[in-house]
Amino acid sequence: MMKKIRIIDATLRDGMHAVSHQLTPEQMAQIATGLDAAGVGTIEVGHGDGLGGSSMQYGFARASDKAYLAAVASAIKNTRLDVLLIPGIGTIEHLEEAMEYGVRTVRVATHVTEADVGEQHIGFAKKHGLEAVGFLMMAHMAPPGKVAEQAKLFESYGADMIYVTDSAGAMVPADVAARIRAVREAVKLPIGFHGHNNLGLAIGNTLAAIEAGAESVDACLRGLGAGAGNAQLEVLVAVLNKMGVETGIDLYKAMDIGEVLDGIMHRPQIISNEALAIGYAGAYGSFMLHARRAAEKFGVDARDILIEMGRRKTVGGQEDLILDVAIDLAKAKQA
Amino acid sequence: MMKKIRIIDATLRDGMHAVSHQLTPEQMAQIATGLDAAGVGTIEVGHGDGLGGSSMQYGFARASDKAYLAAVASAIKNTRLDVLLIPGIGTIEHLEEAMEYGVRTVRVATHVTEADVGEQHIGFAKKHGLEAVGFLMMAHMAPPGKVAEQAKLFESYGADMIYVTDSAGAMVPADVAARIRAVREAVKLPIGFHGHNNLGLAIGNTLAAIEAGAESVDACLRGLGAGAGNAQLEVLVAVLNKMGVETGIDLYKAMDIGEVLDGIMHRPQIISNEALAIGYAGAYGSFMLHARRAAEKFGVDARDILIEMGRRKTVGGQEDLILDVAIDLAKAKQA
Repeated sequence: MMKKIRIIDATLRDGMHAVSHQLTPEQMAQIATGLDAAGVGTIEVGHGDGLGGSSMQYGFARASDKAYLAAVASAIKNTRLDVLLIPGIGTIEHLEEAMEYGVRTVRVATHVTEADVGEQHIGFAKKHGLEAVGFLMMAHMAPPGKVAEQAKLFESYGADMIYVTDSAGAMVPADVAARIRAVREAVKLPIGFHGHNNLGLAIGNTLAAIEAGAESVDACLRGLGAGAGNAQLEVLVAVLNKMGVETGIDLYKAMDIGEVLDGIMHRPQIISNEALAIGYAGAYGSFMLHARRAAEKFGVDARDILIEMGRRKTVGGQEDLILDVAIDLAKAKQA
Repeated sequence: MMKKIRIIDATLRDGMHAVSHQLTPEQMAQIATGLDAAGVGTIEVGHGDGLGGSSMQYGFARASDKAYLAAVASAIKNTRLDVLLIPGIGTIEHLEEAMEYGVRTVRVATHVTEADVGEQHIGFAKKHGLEAVGFLMMAHMAPPGKVAEQAKLFESYGADMIYVTDSAGAMVPADVAARIRAVREAVKLPIGFHGHNNLGLAIGNTLAAIEAGAESVDACLRGLGAGAGNAQLEVLVAVLNKMGVETGIDLYKAMDIGEVLDGIMHRPQIISNEALAIGYAGAYGSFMLHARRAAEKFGVDARDILIEMGRRKTVGGQEDLILDVAIDLAKAKQA
């Protein structure tokens, strides 16, 4: 077990999903001030879907990337500013703009089998002296060997770190450990893990990742995040303190800044039936609404649609398949 | 890893803590009907502190033990009815009354080092043909060898099963595994685990317990329960389904009956700062209110009081020590 772990706080990025991207720059600055004072080393900021995410398709954020970055940059003293870039949503131009606000880390996020679409973004970041992280999303969809192969690609592009990301919260501890170990054997870089709580395992999986060799893990205050949310920052710090693992984060200060969020949230982060269905099916969160509509139309269960979509290893953008699946299920029901 | 696991649902007992023991008998009957239809084999019913718990000291329940048991007994068809008995709160007379409603299992709950106070209760239950479980609470407070010794005591009294109970949600997976393994080596009985989510590990610890040989685990719909609540029933069923472990419980039906609870709860179960502090300190939940008052009076942090109470291995009833601890901390602060 590692004795020192880096925690990247994603409250002000992934946590934005939990508030429909509606935090104000002032609220972000307040929370960033608290995270900085608590000793959080790196914080990720922006729309839930990263740079350029504010749009009709992904939901408009309350403010622009620039407004958020400016507010947070002026609030922090020691914390490293990080952005997420999903090629196809964000561009190199977005990253160039973000760099003007002192961004020092960029996580280039691709589907677990598509690291190649991040090559030029990693290259650009390294050329400009940023820390560049290869962030493999929906990692449950590929077997460990495939995840390791994609990690090697990111390493060859110059990435400084590889993240294994359980976007749908669909993995159990053994799944996480197997992928972290495979990546560890394949690359020389430090490895990170980003978990979601759809199966109630955000903390449990994070511990499994650390035990398997991860040196960096993600967390969000109050467990905010897409779906059932991420590992709860203050809870993770408490657990690692108990286990004698150093994080550099002051537990009480992290707890206290969580109370600021309590005042902002309309409803706390929970494992809803919908989030559970996503984690169980291992399907894209964005499929939920479409699945519910199709289920109603064809008299089938939305959960069965999601499970079938997961089984077919469909990815974001394949929403049109949902109707096909619903029709197939309805036919099977009649037969 | 076991291929078949018994799940005891405690929504209508431990979950009562989350609603200040205010479920009505009608609500209990409705939820019990749903749990029965979902295939839940055993459900525990009553005040959060078990038989006789409804009192000034532990909080008055909305109805009497008898009213709850009568309502649930007439609602279930296949499910086994279970009650919790904490000697000192409940008595053999209470159990005798409960048996009139068809109770078939009793869990005799004692502090982890005090199995001996349950001897006569186990004996009475066995004499009357009940399933009798020795339920060792606050198991984090004793090392594995001590827990095993107490389990052997319960075995010698005639218990059918031993439960290792993480009442304060204070254990990490390695702590749980060590205790389950120690008990497994000491007794011939099946072993159970009851977890709390104060450190975000209700599901993670439950998996660790199963991996270490537990054959029975507890869960509650929507994760209800004292402190940060228990393992969330529908989430646990989903996880075990994914892992190929049989529970006999229909996932969709469990999810659906959770929605009944959503309509009843004023606020969902979360890991609050208070619940986290309890888990981190490994202290009694009932200490929280006293610690907060003492903290205010002496200008110290309530969390430090709880941690010191945990370090001193204090138990329920030792609330008077909280003032001493607060004074000591205040002195240390001035020095």
